[in-house]
Amino acid sequence: MSKIRDQARAARKAGRSLAALPGPARSALLHDLAAALRDPAALPGLLAANAEDLALARAALERGEIDPARYKRLGLDADKLASVADGLDQLAAAPELLGRADLRRELDEGLVLERVPCPLGVLGVVFEARPDAVPQIGGLALKSGNAAVLKGGREALHSNRALVAVLHRVLAAHGQDPACIALLEQREELEELLGQHDLIDLIIARGGKAFVHHVQANTRIPVMGHAEGLCHLYLHAAADPAMAAAVAVDAKCSYPAACNAIETLLWEPAAAPALDACVAALTAAGVELRACEQTRARHPDLRPATDADWDSEYGALILAIRQVPGLDGALAHIEAHGSRHTEAIITEDAAAADRFLAEVDAADVFLNVSTRFADGYRFGLGAEVGISTGKLHARGPVGASGLLTYRWLLRGHGHITRDYGPGKRRFTHRDLP
Amino acid sequence: MSKIRDQARAARKAGRSLAALPGPARSALLHDLAAALRDPAALPGLLAANAEDLALARAALERGEIDPARYKRLGLDADKLASVADGLDQLAAAPELLGRADLRRELDEGLVLERVPCPLGVLGVVFEARPDAVPQIGGLALKSGNAAVLKGGREALHSNRALVAVLHRVLAAHGQDPACIALLEQREELEELLGQHDLIDLIIARGGKAFVHHVQANTRIPVMGHAEGLCHLYLHAAADPAMAAAVAVDAKCSYPAACNAIETLLWEPAAAPALDACVAALTAAGVELRACEQTRARHPDLRPATDADWDSEYGALILAIRQVPGLDGALAHIEAHGSRHTEAIITEDAAAADRFLAEVDAADVFLNVSTRFADGYRFGLGAEVGISTGKLHARGPVGASGLLTYRWLLRGHGHITRDYGPGKRRFTHRDLP
Repeated sequence: MSKIRDQARAARKAGRSLAALPGPARSALLHDLAAALRDPAALPGLLAANAEDLALARAALERGEIDPARYKRLGLDADKLASVADGLDQLAAAPELLGRADLRRELDEGLVLERVPCPLGVLGVVFEARPDAVPQIGGLALKSGNAAVLKGGREALHSNRALVAVLHRVLAAHGQDPACIALLEQREELEELLGQHDLIDLIIARGGKAFVHHVQANTRIPVMGHAEGLCHLYLHAAADPAMAAAVAVDAKCSYPAACNAIETLLWEPAAAPALDACVAALTAAGVELRACEQTRARHPDLRPATDADWDSEYGALILAIRQVPGLDGALAHIEAHGSRHTEAIITEDAAAADRFLAEVDAADVFLNVSTRFADGYRFGLGAEVGISTGKLHARGPVGASGLLTYRWLLRGHGHITRDYGPGKRRFTHRDLP
Repeated sequence: MSKIRDQARAARKAGRSLAALPGPARSALLHDLAAALRDPAALPGLLAANAEDLALARAALERGEIDPARYKRLGLDADKLASVADGLDQLAAAPELLGRADLRRELDEGLVLERVPCPLGVLGVVFEARPDAVPQIGGLALKSGNAAVLKGGREALHSNRALVAVLHRVLAAHGQDPACIALLEQREELEELLGQHDLIDLIIARGGKAFVHHVQANTRIPVMGHAEGLCHLYLHAAADPAMAAAVAVDAKCSYPAACNAIETLLWEPAAAPALDACVAALTAAGVELRACEQTRARHPDLRPATDADWDSEYGALILAIRQVPGLDGALAHIEAHGSRHTEAIITEDAAAADRFLAEVDAADVFLNVSTRFADGYRFGLGAEVGISTGKLHARGPVGASGLLTYRWLLRGHGHITRDYGPGKRRFTHRDLP
């Protein structure tokens, strides 16, 4: 019996008690976890653990083995912890998700059907070297009553260990078995985790596109994750130029490595003033612009784009720009090149806005706002385990409610199916409050 | 370009207009489809097509190439069509599923988030030779606004063609492009269909376990289906013997090939009177009983069971019987051998019932009723595309609402994420009616 199978089994067993927690006890647990992350007495220990990771990562950065963005994500400070704690308090305050039927239906006299939300069971969560993800994911697991086996990026090992210790301390203080949150520490353990299809109900994969594809290709367990984030901003004829420029800069520059950052700007001929404003603002913000021929006819200084640019997720301060004939052209480009993640239009025209919002097939479709709002915290979900670009189960930012399934409970008094049918008993199918 | 890719593309395009249908128009379409199936003028044509299939199947039956159950499922008659028509009317009368937000939240002043249900897109439905499945699946697709590419069992080819013609006629009469429901007729087309991961959003696989496994192993498209239905009936100490016997006979004998039929009867020592009643009733009903040693100590005439019996889905008039020490033993047996489909307990004891209903991890968990109630029509879902034993997305009987996803729509007035954070604007996160 492997260590991981033991951990997954123990997590499943411990998760049962977690699932059965009454709502107020679950909220108290989450509030206490938030308090533990804000506790000034615990801070030095967490920062010391993080400093160990940072020292190793600094050396790797100097050797050119990791990039600066990765190094930056690794850092912990009181502000980051306070923001995670805020999210946990928000989760604690949100309505209890479990146990209460969301559908009650009388099928016949004395025969009552209920559909009751319940946890999936055990989550396998594989995430980047970003220690604040540990309490975030832990909090979502606790809120949804799921156990979790965590495998974080190895650069964050010491920080993850220290944060899992905080989680375990709070769980134990609430009479819960800490085994419900397990941390894997060895890189080889990932493949083994992916092989446990009888013990893990869902793999949540966070990280780069290549990594998510690797996970999907190497497991029979359902995988939730976003393999790609190729988002567009479309400037419609009725776009307000100042708004367009501000949104484009936010959507590209506020965090270029994020999956909800834009990679391509589309504009139609009548939106030339908005395009000009965007080009000026993006250039001033240091963005490399790669433009189609029609765009270059207006802005000859821009570097020419190639066809490959329409399918590139740069994750950096680079943006492709393409002219489209109008709304239909924008919809066709997005259909052909988008990753079904987040798509936005800038327009003051209600009819164009309605059509864009109705017809774009993507998890998030936005009007006159930055694509970077596509985020569980900003959506008010408390936190997110990730953004799903799949259509099955949860879509877009996935919070605690995306980690649930349900069971159908049917209570009767000896009812049998043979008694129903033509010329026999009929179902009443009456929904109950 | 292959024919199937053309059909799938055409279906996707036609599906857009289907998705945009207003609720009343969708209901009218479904009612008209029901009327077309009840139309006495259309009946002879449908029966003639079915007779062609039946003649071929009769010959195959005589050659021993298909079994009698398969032959029986193939038959169409006015009663079967009327019952499908009833389901369609039920779907038509059910509330419209699309277009109306199920969550509305103000994130900040003028920044409003909505979550709006929408169709998955194009369903690939692969089903057994059972012609009544065509209008049933077609109806669920229309109700959920999805296009569908259908691949039915080849023995039903003529019947399927005639029924799809009815669907197409009704669609055309309502101004809808019939291409939204496509029928594949060649067996080789299945593999090709499974390869269209960019055009098909979900495969629904119905049929035997081996077939569903084959589909799952040969596609990158998400698959919904039940690979197994290994259901238990547990006789608790406080079981009423007469009720136990009636439920056991219904759960085993009313349709032994159904996935929601029971394969194993569990009983605890104190439930011996209920066991005796079940053994007598099942024997009288012609069921072959395979019993563990403790059961045979009481009923020495029964054939001995082997360990393989606890994992066998017979799909026939065979039932395994095993004694368990009590509720914990029953829960452990079900956890180890169940397929997470449907599990039932017979008891008059409220505490035992509550524990069983709370702790069994299965799509359907039933008290004092037959497992054969696990069915979309009986649950009041109008019809079902199948029963899902997976935990992701829809679980248990899957009706039209299980064929939906959602999109997050966010409308603002130039809102950008940089304006939010510590010391800046705060989200209001206020749910709206």
